[in-house]
Amino acid sequence: MTRGADLFVTGWGHTRFGRLEGESLESLVVTAARAAIADAGLEPGQIDAVYLGTFNAGIEPLAFASSLALQVSADMFGVPATRVENACASGAAALHQALTHLLAGRGDHVLVVGAEKMSHASTAAVGDALLGADYDHARQAVPGGFVGLFAQVARAYEDRYGSVGDVLARIASRSHHNAMANPYAHLHKELDVEFCREVSDANPMIAAPLRRTDCSPVSDGAAAVVVSSRRRPGAAHGPVRVRSFAQANDFLPAARRDPLAFAASARAWNDALGQAGVSAGDLDLVELHDCFTIAELNLYEAFGLAERGAGTALVHSGDLERGGRLPVNVSGGLKSKGHPVGATGVSQIVMGAMQLSGTAGAMQLPAPRLAAIHNMGGLAIANHVTVLEACG
Amino acid sequence: MTRGADLFVTGWGHTRFGRLEGESLESLVVTAARAAIADAGLEPGQIDAVYLGTFNAGIEPLAFASSLALQVSADMFGVPATRVENACASGAAALHQALTHLLAGRGDHVLVVGAEKMSHASTAAVGDALLGADYDHARQAVPGGFVGLFAQVARAYEDRYGSVGDVLARIASRSHHNAMANPYAHLHKELDVEFCREVSDANPMIAAPLRRTDCSPVSDGAAAVVVSSRRRPGAAHGPVRVRSFAQANDFLPAARRDPLAFAASARAWNDALGQAGVSAGDLDLVELHDCFTIAELNLYEAFGLAERGAGTALVHSGDLERGGRLPVNVSGGLKSKGHPVGATGVSQIVMGAMQLSGTAGAMQLPAPRLAAIHNMGGLAIANHVTVLEACG
Repeated sequence: MTRGADLFVTGWGHTRFGRLEGESLESLVVTAARAAIADAGLEPGQIDAVYLGTFNAGIEPLAFASSLALQVSADMFGVPATRVENACASGAAALHQALTHLLAGRGDHVLVVGAEKMSHASTAAVGDALLGADYDHARQAVPGGFVGLFAQVARAYEDRYGSVGDVLARIASRSHHNAMANPYAHLHKELDVEFCREVSDANPMIAAPLRRTDCSPVSDGAAAVVVSSRRRPGAAHGPVRVRSFAQANDFLPAARRDPLAFAASARAWNDALGQAGVSAGDLDLVELHDCFTIAELNLYEAFGLAERGAGTALVHSGDLERGGRLPVNVSGGLKSKGHPVGATGVSQIVMGAMQLSGTAGAMQLPAPRLAAIHNMGGLAIANHVTVLEACG
Repeated sequence: MTRGADLFVTGWGHTRFGRLEGESLESLVVTAARAAIADAGLEPGQIDAVYLGTFNAGIEPLAFASSLALQVSADMFGVPATRVENACASGAAALHQALTHLLAGRGDHVLVVGAEKMSHASTAAVGDALLGADYDHARQAVPGGFVGLFAQVARAYEDRYGSVGDVLARIASRSHHNAMANPYAHLHKELDVEFCREVSDANPMIAAPLRRTDCSPVSDGAAAVVVSSRRRPGAAHGPVRVRSFAQANDFLPAARRDPLAFAASARAWNDALGQAGVSAGDLDLVELHDCFTIAELNLYEAFGLAERGAGTALVHSGDLERGGRLPVNVSGGLKSKGHPVGATGVSQIVMGAMQLSGTAGAMQLPAPRLAAIHNMGGLAIANHVTVLEACG
């Protein structure tokens, strides 16, 4: 880590993800923020800065939301609050700004909130907003919407390496299974590989070859963390150390990218692990950005967990399952935990922090020490990787 | 400054502001970014990170624009790029993130771009987007739109301290006069105090007591700076030192704020000057956020340049004019230079840096040493103040 500074995740909060009809963007932000501050054993007046990750893009009327977290307490007047947006990586982008803020020595405790309220909007409005994240198709009609873009990735993968129908079904089924243990998850539905494989009325093709079970749902929710430059004796649990964080962006036009390379995802992963001085073999768990099952498959290969084209064999090995060599998305991931866009990157950190502090409840893995977390905006355009480590 | 680090503005670029029909958000970003990098004497591959300030809120189809500046060069693959949004303070918010990035020791040269493309959108669409920045009125019908909100401030001012018709006209006329010397300004039109005071067909009342000449125009444009942790011998001109920067946010609901206090503007101003160890009497120029003339009047008082209610006397003293004791908005300010929302905060820094490096051309003040720059989002909600100092 630059300058060898100590960086800790000292508190966290997480709303349920799902269709939360009684909630607003404000209520979600305030609920998660208040929980995280209390969890860190802090008073609201001790927060030195706030970073809010939210995508919006027209879904929510309030376009200037950075100060929402100040609604937690009258003691938060004056606290610098800034919205950060990197599409679906807005949450991790906010986290990385907060960590940078600490490294700069401009505060001791920074609050990070990721949030999105989506389910009140029409399917068309949400689809339009998400397509707004794509340079080549912003506000244009794409068959299947944003799913259609990842379907193109899946078809490119099939052209190069063969059918993905089976392997994506297995990824989807594992995700549903993992989410059964996650009380915050949007989807609590055990679906076997057979169900996920077969196109049916209950599991229609959305954009070939991606079926409904290959797609993350439209969710509401918020997650928050407090990151601190020192441990908090008053916190509800031990802290988790941020061992490194790295970001890499790719060019926006599709014509400037190999659709399967996820080159900037690979760059961010290698930079973060390199800065941490660890290799993938040292990791005890990974949370990665499975907005669609094909993204997850492709990320295994971009990260070097499998050779290019060999992701299928890795999935079938069972190594990535709970109890396997390197459990991936034991939280259920975006696919089953849900994907309230701006909340996702912060939620992933909460899931990792819970595991490393031994507070993950039914999700808990046996004594994990090291986690890598990957959050991605657009088609591998903005990539943020964070390496977390257990303390003590 | 925290940790006593050296922070410099080493390069800058600025498009014209105005109705730029042949331009797009991308072309504006790339033009300003390329100019700033070259001005700093750098190659694009030497940029360690990019922060983009842009508001958007539905005006522009592309909702995920952080990577646009990477279009400058194929050598920019992988550079971390992040969009920052604090409504009309998005530009300064991006700058402050970039400075924080340098203080954190995570790079030597960070590119900051502020940009907005607005004039292609309908008046209704722009009005809707701007109202999206107001918690109490997001996407609701307000007579006069965002002007209506500042008109409420003006009426509150009149209720407390008396008529503002004359003093606002004088502020507007000075702004138009100053912009005559600024080749980047949207409005190049000398308008005397009489014209600005009288309601006429050419100067209609928009939302009483604010006339057209009390409002900044809807503009397109971009500005960029490179900030660096050391001086650049290869730069086109000497650098400018960032002596301090500070941010303060207020609560969003109007009911939680005195409409005239601009309390978080005052907080940010006092924090920045305090960190710099200077008082207002030490300043040689100020650029402040005059989205409306009433904002400028009220900011004099919030900053303590005049007692509360005494801003009018300060204006009539002539102290704030070019050649006066403390020239304010010699660039023409938002009011006459134009206000492409995300570009404004970066443009203000360019204007200050030009003055302090002696490269301001026809705008040049005689040997200024110290400048304070204030950029504001919403009704004094997000406030960023930066103190710049001449080098050498």
